[in-house]
Amino acid sequence: MKDVAARAGVGLKTVSRVVNGEPGVTPDTERRVQEAIESLGFRRNDSARVLRKGRTASIGLVLEDLADPFYGPLSRAVEEVARAHGALLINGSSAEDPDREQELALALCARRVDGLIVIPAGHDHRYLEPEIKAGIATVFVDRPPGRIDADVVLSDSFGGARAGVAHLIAHGHRRIAFIGDQPRIHTTVERLRGYREAMEDAGLEIDDSWVALGSTAPERVQQAVTAVLSGPEPVTAIFAGNNRVTVTAVRVLAGQDRRVALVGFDDIELADLLGITVIAQDAATLGRTAAERLFRRLDGANDEPAQVALETVLIPRGSGEIPPSD
Amino acid sequence: MKDVAARAGVGLKTVSRVVNGEPGVTPDTERRVQEAIESLGFRRNDSARVLRKGRTASIGLVLEDLADPFYGPLSRAVEEVARAHGALLINGSSAEDPDREQELALALCARRVDGLIVIPAGHDHRYLEPEIKAGIATVFVDRPPGRIDADVVLSDSFGGARAGVAHLIAHGHRRIAFIGDQPRIHTTVERLRGYREAMEDAGLEIDDSWVALGSTAPERVQQAVTAVLSGPEPVTAIFAGNNRVTVTAVRVLAGQDRRVALVGFDDIELADLLGITVIAQDAATLGRTAAERLFRRLDGANDEPAQVALETVLIPRGSGEIPPSD
Repeated sequence: MKDVAARAGVGLKTVSRVVNGEPGVTPDTERRVQEAIESLGFRRNDSARVLRKGRTASIGLVLEDLADPFYGPLSRAVEEVARAHGALLINGSSAEDPDREQELALALCARRVDGLIVIPAGHDHRYLEPEIKAGIATVFVDRPPGRIDADVVLSDSFGGARAGVAHLIAHGHRRIAFIGDQPRIHTTVERLRGYREAMEDAGLEIDDSWVALGSTAPERVQQAVTAVLSGPEPVTAIFAGNNRVTVTAVRVLAGQDRRVALVGFDDIELADLLGITVIAQDAATLGRTAAERLFRRLDGANDEPAQVALETVLIPRGSGEIPPSD
Repeated sequence: MKDVAARAGVGLKTVSRVVNGEPGVTPDTERRVQEAIESLGFRRNDSARVLRKGRTASIGLVLEDLADPFYGPLSRAVEEVARAHGALLINGSSAEDPDREQELALALCARRVDGLIVIPAGHDHRYLEPEIKAGIATVFVDRPPGRIDADVVLSDSFGGARAGVAHLIAHGHRRIAFIGDQPRIHTTVERLRGYREAMEDAGLEIDDSWVALGSTAPERVQQAVTAVLSGPEPVTAIFAGNNRVTVTAVRVLAGQDRRVALVGFDDIELADLLGITVIAQDAATLGRTAAERLFRRLDGANDEPAQVALETVLIPRGSGEIPPSD
């Protein structure tokens, strides 16, 4: 407020009058204060008050992929919490592009959302520091932020993947592939770490050819699955790094003569009827927990940012219990 | 512009200078003109120009349900077109509530989107008339608007449902149920009309107990499917009104001793592996077509609003080709 007063050439009391809509300020002075506020990015550190003042409160959600069914229940849960607080939810998608994520997050801030929930695509979120300082509550979900300290709610990717791979090992598998998403994504790294740890715990060496990371486009996954099933010593089981990988892996395996075991990270619709064993994370609880943390912040909570890791659940349905074909 | 000039107490030339950012206007006059513009809801009828002036252009999309996988590819297609035009996409969901739809659409307009794509929940869109007059291009998708004239892009729900039911009749079925969504939704009405016409064309009478409309919550659909399979003369085939109904119907049918034929409106992921016959609409093309129409409007096209109806495709995969059990 001191910076605003100095820039506008007025006293602190005048700034306070303008911000609180009190009388006794000439239109010209009010305009100068407003301009100083805008140019300095000053914002009332009490977004909940905006709500009481009549404007519809809103929160922004930066998603990663609008077409990924994993984010559907997450978004809806965020929306339900927002609605319970009388706020609108505005979404956008980064399409897994860090520049796009930044552009979208800042565009939502410029459109005066009161808070922001971000599924980060990038690894450097210092661009959000001025917004957070200006009072925009910010919570990360699904993946942690980079180079800033903020609340984050995610699933235990490491523990989930380790449990899934250990399940395959317990059913007799020794040669197990890991087909995952892009290696720059936090969840990919954590799930790969879980795979490696489970293999190591069982005293199993990993052949480099068993690990394939990259795009989740069907063509890439199809190629990767086909590759680990080829050669003189093909794998007898596959751990799929997320729902997009699982869907394509299931299709490829359906066309094989030999039965190959499969455990996928993330549950998928109709997996029950297809007998697909999964490590399920609870997308709705992720969204709800993140949104509740956000509204706690908007209500004035100012404890240190924290990380919440939700447990995953192994759901055996058949595909993960297939014994090794050799 | 005349109203703005009168309200601000300046000449037309001055309003034009302010709007076009030309010099020769005192700060005080500029402020008065801006206030007049805001209070009158005047907006430049040329949103594309905003884009060239530096502010990131944006379009808003009002969805119906964030968790319905049908809207995932639709949203992503809209986003891809927006991005190709250098614009951001901002989403929100009405959760099938007309009041919420209006609140969200107007909130997006207040946040200065250049255009709006709406999947309507309500049947009266006159609330959008001032926004459309003010230059916010508006296109409806999936369902038509009510009581206003605007571009709309949808699938041929009537023709698709008629073809799906005719397919079941061609496979020998005479007692066919229609399990659909809420009767106030346009697509429900059209698909039910297609079902009735196909039955009538084949000279088949419809028993009232075969038609069940309502929420797509799993419990309601489960009850409805169970009901049409009970009694002295159960149906031998089911037409499911949309993907949410199909998913639950498939689960119920999987638990039956007797084989019951099923055709569902909308394709669903992994339906190929489960052998589910569907009437597929192309959600991505719906979104892309709507977005392209929107950007045509933003680029200045001012031909009469039109309705585009996209064809559906019947994909036989087994469930729709099961013969009658009696």
